[in-house]
Amino acid sequence: MTATFAFAVGIRNTNGAGLVLDCLYPAPVMHPKGAAADAAASFSAGTHVLNDTLLQTLISTAPELVPASLVAAQQSCNNQHELIAIRLTADEDIGSTEEAYLKLHLLSHRLALPNTLNLGGIFAHLPNLAWTSAGPIEVTDLSQALLNARAQGLNLEVFSVDKFPKMVNYVVPTGVRIADASRIRLGAYLGDGTTVMHEGFVNFNAAALGPNMVEGRISQGVIIGAGTDLGGSSSTQGTLSGGGEIVISIGEQCLVGANAGTGIPLGDRCTIEAGLYITAGTPVMVVDETGTQVQQVKARELAGQSDMLFIRDAKTGQVLCKTNRKAIELNDALHSHN
Amino acid sequence: MTATFAFAVGIRNTNGAGLVLDCLYPAPVMHPKGAAADAAASFSAGTHVLNDTLLQTLISTAPELVPASLVAAQQSCNNQHELIAIRLTADEDIGSTEEAYLKLHLLSHRLALPNTLNLGGIFAHLPNLAWTSAGPIEVTDLSQALLNARAQGLNLEVFSVDKFPKMVNYVVPTGVRIADASRIRLGAYLGDGTTVMHEGFVNFNAAALGPNMVEGRISQGVIIGAGTDLGGSSSTQGTLSGGGEIVISIGEQCLVGANAGTGIPLGDRCTIEAGLYITAGTPVMVVDETGTQVQQVKARELAGQSDMLFIRDAKTGQVLCKTNRKAIELNDALHSHN
Amino acid sequence: MTATFAFAVGIRNTNGAGLVLDCLYPAPVMHPKGAAADAAASFSAGTHVLNDTLLQTLISTAPELVPASLVAAQQSCNNQHELIAIRLTADEDIGSTEEAYLKLHLLSHRLALPNTLNLGGIFAHLPNLAWTSAGPIEVTDLSQALLNARAQGLNLEVFSVDKFPKMVNYVVPTGVRIADASRIRLGAYLGDGTTVMHEGFVNFNAAALGPNMVEGRISQGVIIGAGTDLGGSSSTQGTLSGGGEIVISIGEQCLVGANAGTGIPLGDRCTIEAGLYITAGTPVMVVDETGTQVQQVKARELAGQSDMLFIRDAKTGQVLCKTNRKAIELNDALHSHN
Repeated sequence: MTATFAFAVGIRNTNGAGLVLDCLYPAPVMHPKGAAADAAASFSAGTHVLNDTLLQTLISTAPELVPASLVAAQQSCNNQHELIAIRLTADEDIGSTEEAYLKLHLLSHRLALPNTLNLGGIFAHLPNLAWTSAGPIEVTDLSQALLNARAQGLNLEVFSVDKFPKMVNYVVPTGVRIADASRIRLGAYLGDGTTVMHEGFVNFNAAALGPNMVEGRISQGVIIGAGTDLGGSSSTQGTLSGGGEIVISIGEQCLVGANAGTGIPLGDRCTIEAGLYITAGTPVMVVDETGTQVQQVKARELAGQSDMLFIRDAKTGQVLCKTNRKAIELNDALHSHN
Repeated sequence: MTATFAFAVGIRNTNGAGLVLDCLYPAPVMHPKGAAADAAASFSAGTHVLNDTLLQTLISTAPELVPASLVAAQQSCNNQHELIAIRLTADEDIGSTEEAYLKLHLLSHRLALPNTLNLGGIFAHLPNLAWTSAGPIEVTDLSQALLNARAQGLNLEVFSVDKFPKMVNYVVPTGVRIADASRIRLGAYLGDGTTVMHEGFVNFNAAALGPNMVEGRISQGVIIGAGTDLGGSSSTQGTLSGGGEIVISIGEQCLVGANAGTGIPLGDRCTIEAGLYITAGTPVMVVDETGTQVQQVKARELAGQSDMLFIRDAKTGQVLCKTNRKAIELNDALHSHN
Repeated sequence: MTATFAFAVGIRNTNGAGLVLDCLYPAPVMHPKGAAADAAASFSAGTHVLNDTLLQTLISTAPELVPASLVAAQQSCNNQHELIAIRLTADEDIGSTEEAYLKLHLLSHRLALPNTLNLGGIFAHLPNLAWTSAGPIEVTDLSQALLNARAQGLNLEVFSVDKFPKMVNYVVPTGVRIADASRIRLGAYLGDGTTVMHEGFVNFNAAALGPNMVEGRISQGVIIGAGTDLGGSSSTQGTLSGGGEIVISIGEQCLVGANAGTGIPLGDRCTIEAGLYITAGTPVMVVDETGTQVQQVKARELAGQSDMLFIRDAKTGQVLCKTNRKAIELNDALHSHN
């Protein structure tokens, strides 16, 4: 029997022209075992419309794959809102909209961490849609829809024109607060105890492992660890535009101050003072516990270290990294490997 | 007769499981006098469902407590959307969701300034809800609601998952413009003549006294005075997370530049140049009208002074506070009291 | 025959009190020629309700002025949602809400660039409205509407209280992605290939000519050229509040880093490093290819130059402009004209 990489049952939304708009999978699974594995393996790889017989078989053999909420809802399904099952046998490049949605769900359901799934092809398989109060609409259909609504005295509200929808219309993980849902894309990973304030942002394939207070921006590919806070408008440099090639992660118990930013990964217990932006190329003077200036380095040489406090000396304008002897020794080791 | 601290009539929204979701009070009052005081005092402290008899009595004895808009609307009320009256006899810790909403309304109705109400217990008495296009929903009910809507070809839009709703779904004070309503929480105090642009943010228990141009963030507890502008993405440090213990206020006719920020209170006519973040611990060189460097201080020693211009000298990187002799003398007096 | 400056057919939304709330023009034109010019000139300057006869005449003489989508929608029109034609013979100060909407449409339909239309009077002719899930509502009517909805168990969602609506409820230009539609005002000009991320903002009479990645704020009057990226929370200083009197434009292939900002116009191939804010008065040391410090200038003297890299030297705190000999020579020429 071929292994199953991921499997889900959900509702697929198709427009009148046959374009798959989006999918909602309330309970996706990865690497199912036992009866669930057998049930998943009864489907070939790909997407399948679930008729009543298939649905009943699935429920009887592996009920955990079909949440009661989905069974309750599917009574209303029709040709444009179909019950489907999707099975991936391996983590290959994304080949369909249904697959793209499955992988984004796996991330937001906390089944996979950012940077662990193959998201190749995702942009090609997510249509750019107008996300409206009447659901997603093809951009080319929008002008007519706006006119029709208006002539009837109705309001058609357009929330975004994008390939990625917002997470909470699909997945609301437990134990989170999200002050402005439009700023969290489907595919974000929000761990338990995470609060994302109005200024916070989390891209797809990006994570706040929780608990976290997020008032800054977590770019695609970036992960922040437990107890780390991002101040208002703080920035973590991504790799998609403007940023460099280093994938940023921030460890535990860090604080990136308001209006600050980082272009290097940070270990644990690091602080960047409010308003200071560290890029990979920033020259930084490392200072030890006694206030002694130890050495001048590019910030990238400090990448991933713990116990660092970055400030700009307000008397001299010099960027300093205050740290302890242990961190400096780690840094020396790093240097010796260059 | 016991005095009444606050009184309001409104509509309470309860879900099928009996959880109070939210309340709308169109015309709350504080410290009512005369007939209104008598009418309020006819209720014991706490929340009361208003039946027709009670409502008619209230209207006949103190019509100012029951706006006509509420009378018009209440015809449609039912068990889950009930007309209630709430009376507080003192400003005690918050003990119910109805009370939490009353205090937030008092702030947004400009009846109380931030930091003048006892908001103890507010987090415990505001349930974390999904705020949707169908109104607030318990987070645990959301998955089913999303599936039901989708199966029927409808769109359920989730705007936030939070304890605090946005202000303008409850209160729209006169003379304001709010470019993105999702960024103003109920409990914000927006004075007449305030414009909050898209990048602006005002938390609960925070105020722009008006007139103001707000393109930055007013954190919980922060008050900005008349004629003060907050530039885009500018930051006022709060005390809830990341910030220190000083409650920030900013006086009149100040300008906090774009991408700037302050961790100290400011008096009147102060400016922080764009991009500069002053924290309480920032070493600042005070410079007088003649350009003479007067003394080096920590920014917190300048807290609350007027007529200060903060810049970072672009030739030396040094943070300067340009001020006048009067302000420096005030500052000396401050020092002598240390 | 008098020339026509602009002409459009659309739907006008009027409330019960006779206040024009907004207008939607699906296919406005500027300087029509041939049959379209003749058809437009058959209307006097101003706004005209289009009855069936006028509509049929217009369709038969100049079908390009009346898109099929509008004909399809107009069947549902009524007294509060009327089909209108509007004709401007010259680019004069705005004299009505219908005209204000026409000019904003001309910008968002890419028919006119920012700063090329006379927008005088626009604030006076745009009513401040509550933009809700039921469409625009006068602010004075909102309290009753909120209560009515609530009593009926319905949700009335208020998205903003503003004079300007968001663009995508009226115009969705081709080839754009807009992650958070609430941050693009009607009157923004978004060229083909523009992506505005969640943190991006484009005011009315402001442009991203495309292709661009916009994660920062494009203020009123500001234009950014092809290939230019604005990093997250970056700022372009406007002239409406806080900014100076210089209208900012940014040329092609520039990068304004995350949390950076500019108060001067930039030519092509310029970069401002992340976190650095250049205001017009910032003293900048100009450095040539060899690292030689050439001269100290105020940033405004570098306005509009190309091939500049602005950084703050992290060792000295000094703001530097690294550039090449050619740019410096241009700059010398600029100086000699002072």
